Amino acid sequence: MSSLPPAVAWRDDRLWLLDQTRLPQVVVVDCMESVDEAISAIQALRVRGAPAIGIAAAYGLLIKLAAAPDIRAEFAARAARMLTARPTAVNLSAAVLRMRACADTTPDGDLIPRLTATAIAIHDEDRELCRRIGEAGAPLVARYPRVLTHCNAGALAVSELGTALAPIYVAHRRGVAVQVIADETRPLLQGARLTTLELHRAGVPVTLITDSSAASMMSAGRVDMAIVGADRVAANGDTANEIGTLGVAILCKHFNLPFYVACPGTTIDLATPGGYAIEIEERDASEVTMIGDTVIAPPGIHVLNYAFDVTPSALITGFITDAGIIRPPFADGLRQFG
Amino acid sequence: MSSLPPAVAWRDDRLWLLDQTRLPQVVVVDCMESVDEAISAIQALRVRGAPAIGIAAAYGLLIKLAAAPDIRAEFAARAARMLTARPTAVNLSAAVLRMRACADTTPDGDLIPRLTATAIAIHDEDRELCRRIGEAGAPLVARYPRVLTHCNAGALAVSELGTALAPIYVAHRRGVAVQVIADETRPLLQGARLTTLELHRAGVPVTLITDSSAASMMSAGRVDMAIVGADRVAANGDTANEIGTLGVAILCKHFNLPFYVACPGTTIDLATPGGYAIEIEERDASEVTMIGDTVIAPPGIHVLNYAFDVTPSALITGFITDAGIIRPPFADGLRQFG
Repeated sequence: MSSLPPAVAWRDDRLWLLDQTRLPQVVVVDCMESVDEAISAIQALRVRGAPAIGIAAAYGLLIKLAAAPDIRAEFAARAARMLTARPTAVNLSAAVLRMRACADTTPDGDLIPRLTATAIAIHDEDRELCRRIGEAGAPLVARYPRVLTHCNAGALAVSELGTALAPIYVAHRRGVAVQVIADETRPLLQGARLTTLELHRAGVPVTLITDSSAASMMSAGRVDMAIVGADRVAANGDTANEIGTLGVAILCKHFNLPFYVACPGTTIDLATPGGYAIEIEERDASEVTMIGDTVIAPPGIHVLNYAFDVTPSALITGFITDAGIIRPPFADGLRQFG
Repeated sequence: MSSLPPAVAWRDDRLWLLDQTRLPQVVVVDCMESVDEAISAIQALRVRGAPAIGIAAAYGLLIKLAAAPDIRAEFAARAARMLTARPTAVNLSAAVLRMRACADTTPDGDLIPRLTATAIAIHDEDRELCRRIGEAGAPLVARYPRVLTHCNAGALAVSELGTALAPIYVAHRRGVAVQVIADETRPLLQGARLTTLELHRAGVPVTLITDSSAASMMSAGRVDMAIVGADRVAANGDTANEIGTLGVAILCKHFNLPFYVACPGTTIDLATPGGYAIEIEERDASEVTMIGDTVIAPPGIHVLNYAFDVTPSALITGFITDAGIIRPPFADGLRQFG
């Protein structure tokens, strides 16, 4: 089976995004012709997963930037708009702030090559982080090979190996008989559409279930462990991730199963003391009331559609990171990722 | 807003079923011309909810029965086929066995009127059971007015008031400021399609959420209590209900919220000692991989799609029944429903 195009690529002064809202039926790569097109794509979740959003944000700032009459002023305006594209994903703001710091310390004439090198570095570092997360988590998967995951924190969300799926890919390559149980992850169905697709193409056995089947699977003894990704981890370990993550964590506690969050250290936001300080995005009702062209609820029904929930640190067995498996307080160990 | 046609009706020697698979977009009542059409409708979930299935099964046995050359032999053959239509719903077998007992004690010449009277009695008794469940549960709703429910155990599943929704309807009529949070209930979306529809038409405030938002709603203090229906309750109180019920019960335990099962005494199956003895139906993968005409998973993906899960008795605060709010052991109090 052919492998998927990369989720994010930079080529010919343009940003190329695999449109994840159209998977698994349609595999199409869109060319972003402007920074605002990139911002719209991020808002519409055509690119998703905290690290991929950060990479796309960094590249997005560069689209045709060299053609601007005042590169520095144009960059500053773009960075300000990009920062507000999505409120929860810390990688987006981290990437934009790093690009801005680069601009602030670079003479006018060097802006384009230095900013481009910074965006490429953000991308390269992400690949390396995923590889290290995979190495750190693979021994856990060898011990607990039937892994439930929620949403998609795989290659489509990040680079090559992903975060939550990285330990699975590494263990699979080492011959561990991994079996993944993928929650479909309503409303946007990243589990059904993306996690199953990338694991299936990589030859990793995967079973798709509805979100509310997870309790029953655990009750039947079919799950050894859960691994999820994270959109933002607070300093105390409280973790914002795709809606439904909290429920999986509570189920794991009930059934006494390990519940791990896999993320690069960059997802840990030491400036956020706890989950209470994380702003949770409320998204459009139509994500719940329509699936494709099918209307699934009566017109005018009130809907609450939060993009994320916050899992308290106490429910999390550990964090599988590029710095190994860690627990809060994070401050010392993660100063390197500041 | 106009009210919905009844879920099940008997008229002109035919069974009329509101096709619940087409709600909320299309409100259509189908005429069942044969017992096998009725069995197919039950299997396809066009009629659903344990009590409604029982009523439909009883009426289904009568369709054009008078025209059979040997009424008794034809009835016996129909009853045998109907018994295997769906494995989990106890009301179906209870209704068929009651019809069969009627046939066994009725002379040939009286078969049609006596069987018809029995089916109508099953239907009438169900209405009365729902009214009593509503009366029993309404004081709980007055105390815990923000009620989360899963699946649809309302008027569409039963008669008039439903089971899980009966306490809500009765409290609402008494002026309690009820607010219902309805899980969408994948894969068949009975919450999104049916619970929201019937509550909205009845003027009860209702908010639709995805199944995996329930934890987040409870964590935010937006839920006071959960009430669900039941497909089969074992003698020890273990309860089989729509997949996802177990997860709601575990979340309620975690957040220290009351979790009630509302059902008529007929749903309590004293012949089933515990949940381990309840056969759980596995349904077709396409229910998960397709929504309407939209394919949401890659072709060939392995799916597990269990129709029900079993919630252990220990997670259930109480059973709201026509005999009041009860707890196991049920044996003495429920001998009347045998």
